[in-house]
Amino acid sequence: MKVVIVGGVAGGMSAATRLRRLVEDAEIVVLERGAHVSYANCGLPYYLGGVIKERDALLLQTPEALRARFGLDVRVRSEAVAIDLARRTVRVRDLVGGEYEEAYDRLVLSPGARPFVPELPGIERARTLRDVTDVDRVAADLDAGARTAVVIGAGFIGVEAAENLRERGLAVTLVELADQVLPPLDAEMAAPLTAELRAHGVRVELATRPAAVGPDRVTLADGRTLAADLVVLAIGVRPETALAGGAGLAVGPRGGIAVDAYQRTSDPYVYAVGDAAEKRDALTGEPALVPLANLANRHGRLVADVIAGRPVRAREAAGTAVVKVFGRTAAATGWSEKRLRAAGRPHQAVHLHPGSRAGYYPGASPIALKVLYDPEDLRILGAQAVGTEGVEKRIDVIATAMAGGLTAPDLADLELAYAPPYGSAKDPVNMAGMIAENLATGTGRAVQWHELDAALADGAALIDVRTAAEHARGAIPGALNLPVDELRDRLDELPAGQPLIVHCQVGLRGHTAARLLTQLTGRPTANLDGGYATWAAARTTRADAADPAPAAPLAA
Amino acid sequence: MKVVIVGGVAGGMSAATRLRRLVEDAEIVVLERGAHVSYANCGLPYYLGGVIKERDALLLQTPEALRARFGLDVRVRSEAVAIDLARRTVRVRDLVGGEYEEAYDRLVLSPGARPFVPELPGIERARTLRDVTDVDRVAADLDAGARTAVVIGAGFIGVEAAENLRERGLAVTLVELADQVLPPLDAEMAAPLTAELRAHGVRVELATRPAAVGPDRVTLADGRTLAADLVVLAIGVRPETALAGGAGLAVGPRGGIAVDAYQRTSDPYVYAVGDAAEKRDALTGEPALVPLANLANRHGRLVADVIAGRPVRAREAAGTAVVKVFGRTAAATGWSEKRLRAAGRPHQAVHLHPGSRAGYYPGASPIALKVLYDPEDLRILGAQAVGTEGVEKRIDVIATAMAGGLTAPDLADLELAYAPPYGSAKDPVNMAGMIAENLATGTGRAVQWHELDAALADGAALIDVRTAAEHARGAIPGALNLPVDELRDRLDELPAGQPLIVHCQVGLRGHTAARLLTQLTGRPTANLDGGYATWAAARTTRADAADPAPAAPLAA
Repeated sequence: MKVVIVGGVAGGMSAATRLRRLVEDAEIVVLERGAHVSYANCGLPYYLGGVIKERDALLLQTPEALRARFGLDVRVRSEAVAIDLARRTVRVRDLVGGEYEEAYDRLVLSPGARPFVPELPGIERARTLRDVTDVDRVAADLDAGARTAVVIGAGFIGVEAAENLRERGLAVTLVELADQVLPPLDAEMAAPLTAELRAHGVRVELATRPAAVGPDRVTLADGRTLAADLVVLAIGVRPETALAGGAGLAVGPRGGIAVDAYQRTSDPYVYAVGDAAEKRDALTGEPALVPLANLANRHGRLVADVIAGRPVRAREAAGTAVVKVFGRTAAATGWSEKRLRAAGRPHQAVHLHPGSRAGYYPGASPIALKVLYDPEDLRILGAQAVGTEGVEKRIDVIATAMAGGLTAPDLADLELAYAPPYGSAKDPVNMAGMIAENLATGTGRAVQWHELDAALADGAALIDVRTAAEHARGAIPGALNLPVDELRDRLDELPAGQPLIVHCQVGLRGHTAARLLTQLTGRPTANLDGGYATWAAARTTRADAADPAPAAPLAA
Repeated sequence: MKVVIVGGVAGGMSAATRLRRLVEDAEIVVLERGAHVSYANCGLPYYLGGVIKERDALLLQTPEALRARFGLDVRVRSEAVAIDLARRTVRVRDLVGGEYEEAYDRLVLSPGARPFVPELPGIERARTLRDVTDVDRVAADLDAGARTAVVIGAGFIGVEAAENLRERGLAVTLVELADQVLPPLDAEMAAPLTAELRAHGVRVELATRPAAVGPDRVTLADGRTLAADLVVLAIGVRPETALAGGAGLAVGPRGGIAVDAYQRTSDPYVYAVGDAAEKRDALTGEPALVPLANLANRHGRLVADVIAGRPVRAREAAGTAVVKVFGRTAAATGWSEKRLRAAGRPHQAVHLHPGSRAGYYPGASPIALKVLYDPEDLRILGAQAVGTEGVEKRIDVIATAMAGGLTAPDLADLELAYAPPYGSAKDPVNMAGMIAENLATGTGRAVQWHELDAALADGAALIDVRTAAEHARGAIPGALNLPVDELRDRLDELPAGQPLIVHCQVGLRGHTAARLLTQLTGRPTANLDGGYATWAAARTTRADAADPAPAAPLAA
């Protein structure tokens, strides 16, 4: 059997090595358009930032090493330019010179995704961060003395690029069309990350559209210009479907190569994996684009199994991701609230801000955690977390709970490892489950930050149950301060208004107060979900979007 | 309704505060024998070590604060000495003076567990670490100039005590009856922790029995003596059942208060939670003792729900725990292999040593990970991990997978958060799943470290597929070195012997080599599970048990 694999990075190389382990006598040819295979594409920004010191560290494998260990015929600078499905051949352009045909019994397409390039004057000057050659170009720009940079797009790659260029001392502006960074997160969760970027000297321009790229600047649609010795483009990727589409293979509704659960394309001898291929969404079962390395590797391995005749199927994809933003970490799995809202899907959100570990153990810091679930069947739909430690751990746990079909209240029962240096006896994930359980049983009623204004306009009364000192440091307009520990003695001071809404700093005391007031007054009492912390974070999503931030080059 | 709660720490206080939130008009009395309620008992060792600087940080709540917020009647130094089930009263001894009776409608027992004290001459001098008063005594010993300490028992508390006393500069010897530290772990997993303790100057005496405690020393059964200004006893705890048993409440087969899934004891008006109560084991459904804070808190909350008339049930307990051992972390969930073996329960183990994060990102370190599962239905039975970062994260994920009913091969499909600072595209948990999948499908065959000698004696041939340099640094006796990258060209050098067993450093190259040899030679080929790393760790479990280690007092 002869198997040709197009693409020699995550999905393609996982397929090739797994296939060799399964079928020692298969002929396996890997065609890679770029100069390198099996490189650490997720590490590219960190090489720019100097975190990864050696360029060689990015190159995980060489064609020679792959031949020695796996008997692979790996050809770099070899672009598959056409497929003849009828004859089962691939036309290969040797980028050093010449073209030839390669026959296959099975073909695996793993060409990845290409950066989306908007139609902007001068955009051809912008750098992308897709492969080692890209990063070499940026490194050359830095060596040539670039002092200012504009990063277009504040998704995962854009934020990583901004951080790392800043770490290299450049004056960096991050320009994002949306009104928040990291659009996969909900706005109130992303707000502290904008603050973190600014605190580290990255200028963040939200709700901002670039209009043109000049030789030393980027001009914005509002007429302002940003100095830019270097422009990095990171506004997302598009599946590489030119080869597949040109051959007549089906392209799916989301623009990726259409595959079934066995990673088979519309041609029985051709498979596709990785960022070029569509996945099936875990929530809807519908086709989705989820350009993540975990899935590329997993599906690459799986396609080898399929080719070897094993009865394996790809699971539907939830999409779990994490990003470092200077001293903070943001992670997410499943759907965001805005995505659920846009799809008209019923959902309940819970926000909380528990400590990363026992509060009495030094170094504990709050984690902003949000869990989304179906209010009917309580199925977990997604989760997001932002903080300084233990963040992705909680998202990994929730992603696993989703894979196992646990409900949001089930999270309360998880037995998670606890000792003071690592967590709390009631882990943040447990606490999210308890809140969900309270809401599901009617023990708690929640008002979300974005519902508060309407509720107050409707006649609700807002009570801040924090201490007077906390209230004085910052309060929600219109809130009456009645500390929870004094509530029982001061019921006569309760304002008129129905329903009562209480809030504390993070939601915990608010829950106690809401329970107390519900029982003692008989008035329906809701708790502001996530407390003042979530409300305040949400408020900053637009209010300070235009705040100037220091963006001077750092001393080299 | 009047509810009396015996015990004012984890389980009791969770019950009290939850019950208040559910039933504002209940009368809730909390009786605590000690001087403090709701203190951080898991933090006690870290206060001794100076990690937690302020004693007040250990005291999470006061009776006054609990009265203000939760309307609780909290009575410290108040010991429940007898229960009259027929009259529904508790006899309370006020340790300041006097006794009285307290009536209840519902009684919750959460008295915890007491340190097990062996019958040894002089043992009354030994300190325990159960509550704040205990830790005050040890702190006084330290202030009085204690320079040498013997910690008896190398379980979680003993190891934490040893570490923290060492951090305070004492010469510490840790004495353990078993031939390994941390008996909940399997021996080969615990071995690097023994090494870590020794590397930090703790003398570790395994397979060692203390015979007597003298005024300034501990005498061992073998006649040796260990200097001991301070003796800490940490050989486990026993449920506090004197009160319950004295009242005629049923005590279960494991020696804890017998309860059903609603935490009800044998008396319909009495409940029990926390370390004093038995749990139901998640694997067998049988009664078990699982003295962990997570479960105490969870069941405390749950018993309040039950008393309030809610239809909740306690889940069966897997038991997930973590411990810091100087620069290392050890975590575990479910059953260990030795426990499975002792119970005669079929099981398959996989060992691996993946990096905590992408190898090219600075700071990655290996995690020794072991997953145990049922070889028939592939249900996960337990897991253990040891390393320097990301350790408890992987155990939390596996504990969650177990709660969700995922199989060991299902771990391969988990979508876990990946970016280079946090993990790998193939997370250690995914890799464990892939190994399990290979074994389940017959794609891989494993030999365990403890099976190797017998297999070799039986005629198997052992091949080390690492590089010559690795082989030279340390090899398994009898292994022939044939590097994996040269195997295809050196098949004629294969030794005689059936079956072939290959090994590499951690098991990864061994798998590739085993697949290659199985296919090319037709000879059954197994891979040494966990490679040289697991084999070498297992070898140290006894070989150097008597090694002397530096144990001099540190400069203050």
